[in-house]
Amino acid sequence: MGVRELGLPERFPHDGSLPERVTIWEVGPRDGLQNERTTVPVDVKLEFLDRLADAGLTTVEATSFVHPKWVPQLADAEELLARLRRRDGVRYPVLVPNERGLDRALAAGVTHVAVFASATESFARRNLNSGLDAQFAMFEPVIARAREAGLDVRGYVSMCFGDPWEGIVPTEQVVTVGRRLLDAGCTQLSLGDTIGVATAAAVERLLDAFIEGGVAIADLAVHFHDTYGQALANTLAALRKGVTTVDASAGGLGGCPYAESATGNLATEDLVWLLDGLGVEHGVDLDALVETSRWMSRQLGRSSPSRVVRALSG
Amino acid sequence: MGVRELGLPERFPHDGSLPERVTIWEVGPRDGLQNERTTVPVDVKLEFLDRLADAGLTTVEATSFVHPKWVPQLADAEELLARLRRRDGVRYPVLVPNERGLDRALAAGVTHVAVFASATESFARRNLNSGLDAQFAMFEPVIARAREAGLDVRGYVSMCFGDPWEGIVPTEQVVTVGRRLLDAGCTQLSLGDTIGVATAAAVERLLDAFIEGGVAIADLAVHFHDTYGQALANTLAALRKGVTTVDASAGGLGGCPYAESATGNLATEDLVWLLDGLGVEHGVDLDALVETSRWMSRQLGRSSPSRVVRALSG
Repeated sequence: MGVRELGLPERFPHDGSLPERVTIWEVGPRDGLQNERTTVPVDVKLEFLDRLADAGLTTVEATSFVHPKWVPQLADAEELLARLRRRDGVRYPVLVPNERGLDRALAAGVTHVAVFASATESFARRNLNSGLDAQFAMFEPVIARAREAGLDVRGYVSMCFGDPWEGIVPTEQVVTVGRRLLDAGCTQLSLGDTIGVATAAAVERLLDAFIEGGVAIADLAVHFHDTYGQALANTLAALRKGVTTVDASAGGLGGCPYAESATGNLATEDLVWLLDGLGVEHGVDLDALVETSRWMSRQLGRSSPSRVVRALSG
Repeated sequence: MGVRELGLPERFPHDGSLPERVTIWEVGPRDGLQNERTTVPVDVKLEFLDRLADAGLTTVEATSFVHPKWVPQLADAEELLARLRRRDGVRYPVLVPNERGLDRALAAGVTHVAVFASATESFARRNLNSGLDAQFAMFEPVIARAREAGLDVRGYVSMCFGDPWEGIVPTEQVVTVGRRLLDAGCTQLSLGDTIGVATAAAVERLLDAFIEGGVAIADLAVHFHDTYGQALANTLAALRKGVTTVDASAGGLGGCPYAESATGNLATEDLVWLLDGLGVEHGVDLDALVETSRWMSRQLGRSSPSRVVRALSG
């Protein structure tokens, strides 16, 4: 008999020290797939989105309007959104890199967008070919126009804990960048540990700094990478601080930037296992999600880096 | 430039909510190797033990006196211990399954032994071919004789959170088994999540139950497996409860019971990364340890499942 049939993981009653409910922000179809080498047909992506919603995920980042030259995997964004079978109660945010991307998103009937900002000068220059000031000059009109059109706008803040050129990123700098995005109109921030170097102590300090800076914890999401194995411990620390939105990628998609190492996004299944144990509600059917990730693994021709997916597939 | 040269992970000052110092109980040479298929020559094992001590580990479980029929990998225990270059300040505990094993350990000059008990009737029957009562009948004279000889005796309690035949293991049962081992003379318990199904909530409840049962937290170690990705989050929860001894396996050795899945022991490197970030002292040189695990990977002909080892070898 499998561990699931035996009632594992044991579900503990909610103890009041954690949020009662967490929203899992599923990034697999966008952040996950954009880092996968195997080109995925639009029909497979549509089935993936359907299966994720069937499994109970209520926020599924669907695609990106970044230029196809940079992310060929998501060049089918228009077709995908045109054919997407939207569900009541499910949000399908879309990443937009600039005003041109926003135009495309608006034309596609998107109701929720996200911008991808950097907390560091170095990464802004590498990723956007511009510095931090130019980053805001580019995003401010995007955010303003999106909000005028009635859209919600998430602001990703990348490199919140460490940067591969600058090393340790000062907390104040991250808070400054985050507040600037909120002031520009963002409705939520996703604080990203892009290179996976955060520990629980760093997570606590950054969240404390945002709270002290007057930002509501409800407006903060966390986005952890498992490069050094810390993603779930960091998530636990964030939950203890009251964070109620956690980013994760079904099956740990996008977790293989180089070869077989499993160093990418926190796997949604591993997060669900933790939340189940902690008695925190999330609405996701773990077995349906695992089945979805196993199916997606077959499409990609490689095994999932999620520990839960692997263990339940053994 | 690598993340290590950039000063990552960031080391936070100790904040008083955690133990100031943790003893890492390195189980790689025993628990790790016994689950590896590739036979490792005794010279390699001796170099492994030397390298681990060089890296700053002060407790290195060296081998086991279990019958060679069950664990052929450790059939060289006598030769290993005869040739081991013991260091001041480093303990080399050895697992003993029964009185015959204790005799061999005493003859080999061992000063610290461990017994491996089960928290469940089912696992006791499977692993020891006896029930829980027979388990104690077997271990009690081993523990008593070892203590009489002046040895420290660790009691492993396996299946503390879930059992593959019984499912959820009642907390009271684990505490009963643990107390019985302490009453028999064990100087420390290692609470094992043998199948990796614990979550942070389960860890907290079990530790609370032991504390309420009058057991000193200083006498409790934790031993987590990463089968469902929870090992480090569970460790964080245990540290917050005041646990000061954490078991781990260099490079995640023993992590591949089936094929390529990384489902075994918590990797020492991933633990060290966490402790560094939290400002908890441990005395281990992470870079030397990673180098040791990379060397051991070459001996075994496979890559390490430790995320830190993989990331720093990229």
